Amino acid sequence: MLSKNQIKHIRSLHQKKFRNELGLFIAEGPKLTEELLQSGYRVKEVYLLADALPDFQKNYATNKPEYFEVSRKDLERISTLKTPNDVLAVVEIPAIKPDYSKIFEQAILILDDIQDPGNLGTIIRSADWFGIKTILCSKNTVEAFNPKVVQATMGSICRVDVFYLDLALFFERAPTSYPFYGTLLEGQSIYQFDFEKACAIIIGNESRGISREVQNFVKEKIKILPYQRDDKETAESLNAAVAASLVMAEYRRQQSKKT
Amino acid sequence: MLSKNQIKHIRSLHQKKFRNELGLFIAEGPKLTEELLQSGYRVKEVYLLADALPDFQKNYATNKPEYFEVSRKDLERISTLKTPNDVLAVVEIPAIKPDYSKIFEQAILILDDIQDPGNLGTIIRSADWFGIKTILCSKNTVEAFNPKVVQATMGSICRVDVFYLDLALFFERAPTSYPFYGTLLEGQSIYQFDFEKACAIIIGNESRGISREVQNFVKEKIKILPYQRDDKETAESLNAAVAASLVMAEYRRQQSKKT
Repeated sequence: MLSKNQIKHIRSLHQKKFRNELGLFIAEGPKLTEELLQSGYRVKEVYLLADALPDFQKNYATNKPEYFEVSRKDLERISTLKTPNDVLAVVEIPAIKPDYSKIFEQAILILDDIQDPGNLGTIIRSADWFGIKTILCSKNTVEAFNPKVVQATMGSICRVDVFYLDLALFFERAPTSYPFYGTLLEGQSIYQFDFEKACAIIIGNESRGISREVQNFVKEKIKILPYQRDDKETAESLNAAVAASLVMAEYRRQQSKKT
Repeated sequence: MLSKNQIKHIRSLHQKKFRNELGLFIAEGPKLTEELLQSGYRVKEVYLLADALPDFQKNYATNKPEYFEVSRKDLERISTLKTPNDVLAVVEIPAIKPDYSKIFEQAILILDDIQDPGNLGTIIRSADWFGIKTILCSKNTVEAFNPKVVQATMGSICRVDVFYLDLALFFERAPTSYPFYGTLLEGQSIYQFDFEKACAIIIGNESRGISREVQNFVKEKIKILPYQRDDKETAESLNAAVAASLVMAEYRRQQSKKT
């Protein structure tokens, strides 16, 4: 059984404030825990139901963190999910910084104030799928170690680096040859557009799009065209995670054709 | 001020059971209410804050439903949102059926047990964007008039028809010439694939994919390829709404090139 203090400690990680203070986050479910254990992340503690124990012991003998068998009731107390998923891991937030000597040699994603945790998680998952390993976020973007983000990444948080920084400062230190593409209403169709191999794709906030300040640094405006019917209205915009995924897919399609 | 009975009535619509029984659903926010009022939907009642009243009276003089000014407290009581958005509409669920004389002349989307309301809402929004007007859902797919779905459509629920039916029966009555494309792991890349103009795109459940039963009716298997890196693992799958959107985008891109 978990002590009151243990429960309090883990529950504090439901809040951003304590995640930052303690440098820890929560990940749930056997699959995600498995992926984190095999990745470079440092899993500090694992709390799991008796049923989940044999699998855990069989598969992680070599990489075993401290673990505690807990009752279903206790798991419900510490879980961030409505229906807890057998295993909860407490994991260290990695202390990594962008490598400015390499960042401009690759394709990266830049998020300008994405607010919805599900959207950020889905974007990280799609970035992983399309081989984009670095995401830079404005300081007002939702936190990548928010439990809802972590769960929505479906493990991709292990393979994509997410950094938070002052975007304007970042743009200013970028080489002038490095292209920043921004998704904007007046842009040209991504299908008529030629993506450079090393480039940054900027995705704006769910309701406001890319901020004025960041727009100043956009070198090429790109857009996903809606299907036009004269007689009918159409959607005004796409979901931000969908838009980001469509642009990354098209970037990757073009690069695959070139090689 | 709303009576206890009014509040109880509206709150009952938070539940699927009562939505079905009463044939009503809830939509929130001035923008969504505006779109519903301009669409073919029948808006029965509108509940709104005093602040939202002038705009509402100015813009909907000709199409005005019964409306009630409510306090912020009452709006919180009847809202499905954590932060209510000024206006709440009670709307009739339309009594429409698929038109089998026309359905096989167009591109449609088929959803096999999509469970997440946010995913369904996002799929409806993307379908609207890419000009796909009809979505057929298996009976176990999450309900389109679930408040979370309605909100995630961002108004596209007004322009896309969503039907629930026994998919096996539907497949059996389809003409043999009508192609069903299914997103499956062993499929061919959507970018190497030639979509017919009239076709159905089938998207499976978030964790199980397309069910065995539905797979029997898939004529061509398609797939969104991940970026392959030899040295690294990659995401196992894409979010279902992202996958659906990528396939619809590619369908639309191909059709636009042909015209």
